[in-house]
Amino acid sequence: MLLSSIASILECDFAGVDREITGMNTLKDATKDEVTFVANPKYIKEIKDTQAGAIIISSKHLSEVPDGCLALVVENSYWSMAILSKEFAPSIEDEDSVLAIIGEGTKISDKAEIAKGAVIGKNCTILAHVYVGSNSTIGDNTILYPSVTVYRDCVIGNDCIIHANSVIGSDGFGFASNALGEHKKIYQNGNVVLEDDVEMGSNSSIDRAVFGTTLIKKGVRLDNLIQIGHNCELGEYSVVAGQVGIAGSAKLGRSSIIGAQSGIAGHLEIAPFNTFAARTGVTKSIKESGKTFAGFPFTDHRSWLKIQGKIAKLIK
Amino acid sequence: MLLSSIASILECDFAGVDREITGMNTLKDATKDEVTFVANPKYIKEIKDTQAGAIIISSKHLSEVPDGCLALVVENSYWSMAILSKEFAPSIEDEDSVLAIIGEGTKISDKAEIAKGAVIGKNCTILAHVYVGSNSTIGDNTILYPSVTVYRDCVIGNDCIIHANSVIGSDGFGFASNALGEHKKIYQNGNVVLEDDVEMGSNSSIDRAVFGTTLIKKGVRLDNLIQIGHNCELGEYSVVAGQVGIAGSAKLGRSSIIGAQSGIAGHLEIAPFNTFAARTGVTKSIKESGKTFAGFPFTDHRSWLKIQGKIAKLIK
Amino acid sequence: MLLSSIASILECDFAGVDREITGMNTLKDATKDEVTFVANPKYIKEIKDTQAGAIIISSKHLSEVPDGCLALVVENSYWSMAILSKEFAPSIEDEDSVLAIIGEGTKISDKAEIAKGAVIGKNCTILAHVYVGSNSTIGDNTILYPSVTVYRDCVIGNDCIIHANSVIGSDGFGFASNALGEHKKIYQNGNVVLEDDVEMGSNSSIDRAVFGTTLIKKGVRLDNLIQIGHNCELGEYSVVAGQVGIAGSAKLGRSSIIGAQSGIAGHLEIAPFNTFAARTGVTKSIKESGKTFAGFPFTDHRSWLKIQGKIAKLIK
Repeated sequence: MLLSSIASILECDFAGVDREITGMNTLKDATKDEVTFVANPKYIKEIKDTQAGAIIISSKHLSEVPDGCLALVVENSYWSMAILSKEFAPSIEDEDSVLAIIGEGTKISDKAEIAKGAVIGKNCTILAHVYVGSNSTIGDNTILYPSVTVYRDCVIGNDCIIHANSVIGSDGFGFASNALGEHKKIYQNGNVVLEDDVEMGSNSSIDRAVFGTTLIKKGVRLDNLIQIGHNCELGEYSVVAGQVGIAGSAKLGRSSIIGAQSGIAGHLEIAPFNTFAARTGVTKSIKESGKTFAGFPFTDHRSWLKIQGKIAKLIK
Repeated sequence: MLLSSIASILECDFAGVDREITGMNTLKDATKDEVTFVANPKYIKEIKDTQAGAIIISSKHLSEVPDGCLALVVENSYWSMAILSKEFAPSIEDEDSVLAIIGEGTKISDKAEIAKGAVIGKNCTILAHVYVGSNSTIGDNTILYPSVTVYRDCVIGNDCIIHANSVIGSDGFGFASNALGEHKKIYQNGNVVLEDDVEMGSNSSIDRAVFGTTLIKKGVRLDNLIQIGHNCELGEYSVVAGQVGIAGSAKLGRSSIIGAQSGIAGHLEIAPFNTFAARTGVTKSIKESGKTFAGFPFTDHRSWLKIQGKIAKLIK
Repeated sequence: MLLSSIASILECDFAGVDREITGMNTLKDATKDEVTFVANPKYIKEIKDTQAGAIIISSKHLSEVPDGCLALVVENSYWSMAILSKEFAPSIEDEDSVLAIIGEGTKISDKAEIAKGAVIGKNCTILAHVYVGSNSTIGDNTILYPSVTVYRDCVIGNDCIIHANSVIGSDGFGFASNALGEHKKIYQNGNVVLEDDVEMGSNSSIDRAVFGTTLIKKGVRLDNLIQIGHNCELGEYSVVAGQVGIAGSAKLGRSSIIGAQSGIAGHLEIAPFNTFAARTGVTKSIKESGKTFAGFPFTDHRSWLKIQGKIAKLIK
């Protein structure tokens, strides 16, 4: 899309050299062919280092924009970004792709739907009512139980097992809001990648990234009714018990063990090899490893037990 | 159904003028062609104002019944109501309806099922393994991702997006119980209405009303794995994060913001423009607006932070 | 499978009389034709009473093995058990079974999939996108709403209602882990049994047993988005509200009432006729009946109310 077209869509002035923009990305990851944006004040200090070809920005931060990055000045940069995200969204199904490619030894129910452009590996089992979206790829020996939905552009590795009615690649929970409280969808143009040997229970959901990838690394075990938000990363061999919710952009290190009904807030970084008791509510990043946490607000497990003992004594 | 037939089904005496009864409804909403009931003592004071043509009632409240309302006297009025609810339940699919009507520009997967009597608007996208029940209507430009289930008689507006494997219109959790602890299903003969511009995440459930409508107003945003009980109302532009549960008959005002893993108890009324931190457990109605709440039992957010600070000091 | 083959798979010495082993089971339930294992130290005292034909065991507990039970000595008995569990796992679909048998008066959508070997009773309604696995049986008058998935070998009774997108028989969350943190799947070769008159809401999951049966007894009512782990038992007429999680091997007595968003830890035994307020976190077995509990850590409901009152006063 031409920069001039973007300016026209966003109803902002445009007075630079026109050129092609191929997508939208974060301040940190955008290339010179991409447009970025800044909305949250805490990212203003990153503006000066962006490699983006253009930036959606309010006039008050104009002075931060580096040379070579064209400023698209708007009133509400997050709202404008939401408007533009729709323009870069691919179609729901890619009618122009070739027919799906199916590996040797793979069995696919005739009641499953494999969209155009999908690639399925060898010796997979794909049961009835499964949906695999356009251009998604599935490795070898992977099992998709009935009514699993994989949205377009996702990647599932070898030796994975996805249990019935789980969803991979639904849209992350993203929207801009205006002063009236109305919401504008931010199209989620990233994807989900499951590496090899991941098992995922039934009725669980992993949302696709807004940009880039929601990443579930090798050997992870997910139970039932789990919510994993957009742009999360789960380290190798992590174990997540039933009904856990992990909010967007949280990064968990290798061998994280998350007890049932726990919640992890968004944008946290959790060091590897930590354990969380059932129902822990994790609200801060964790830099140490090898510990056990519990409670909400969470603390180390021993302190939580002590606190509960003290609370029980309050009525005695 | 004739009043005399109802009396016969409920095994109660009948000594009035017989006439046709078209349905069952609450004390407040029943018309003269409908039968109502009273089971919960707190509604006894509403009996005298009912417009219902007949009422299922125990003998001890007989004196409250107004003129023109025929009393069907039974031992356990809630149990009898449950028995009768089945008689008014429509068939699961309406074989007598005409073939579904599909608007111009709408694409429907040949692996989707659109039941008789459904009406789908223009430019919709309905993917594989979707089910739209009899007499349900879908507006224009709406997207139903794979394995979405819409039960019969529901209404989805224009410009809605429903993510994979979500359910609209499953039965509310309703039953009568007897002294032995056995349960009798109360058929949920109402529906669900989603107004325009609603987005609903994956693996979420909205139950149909027992009578009337479960209502999700314009511009609401729902995340994944959310439970919304029968007869709830969500005000315009409300935002509900992942794994929230809203129990039956709760009414939330405009622009309610509900953090992840929160719970709202049944039958509450929440004023507009309030925010609830993640994991809030809301147990009382709220009349003020513009506040932020947290905790379980819930309180205003600042008090909750103070309380948690005090608790943390207990062990020091 | 021959004992000598099992020894070969587990790479352990074998020096007994070879014979056929038909399956794997717990110390308590294994017969002389089955192989058992011991991994958790708390079961060591049960070794001496096992009737199993063979046992996977570490060398340090070898002296406990009774006569007639052949010891398969390995380094990590749980890991070895996981390896062997795969050998006894049936195929996902049983291609050798006969075509499904369908009872009189039953209506099955042509977009449903009924696998070979399934038996469906009379007057059932099976809607679009339902999957019923090999050798599963469904009683009379049962309704399966769209996109319900029933895995193989499960049993659903008469007069049951399963709401849309729920899953019966997905694998329990079972795996062995080694010193590197890698996980090895324990195949879940048991099943799920729902007795008569069970109603299950939408988007709920009941996992199949690792051995034996996950059992939901007569008249149980389950709401939406519920997780029930492998080998659980729910007593007759129990009521489980939305978003409850019940961890593996918990046994709940008759008429248990579990409030919304509660959690029950694994391996607990809960006496009949108890009630749990919303969000109770049950962490210990309960021997008394007729009580109401609340909180996490949980206590009797009155104490919980008192504690919350005291906590609220902390900031005054």
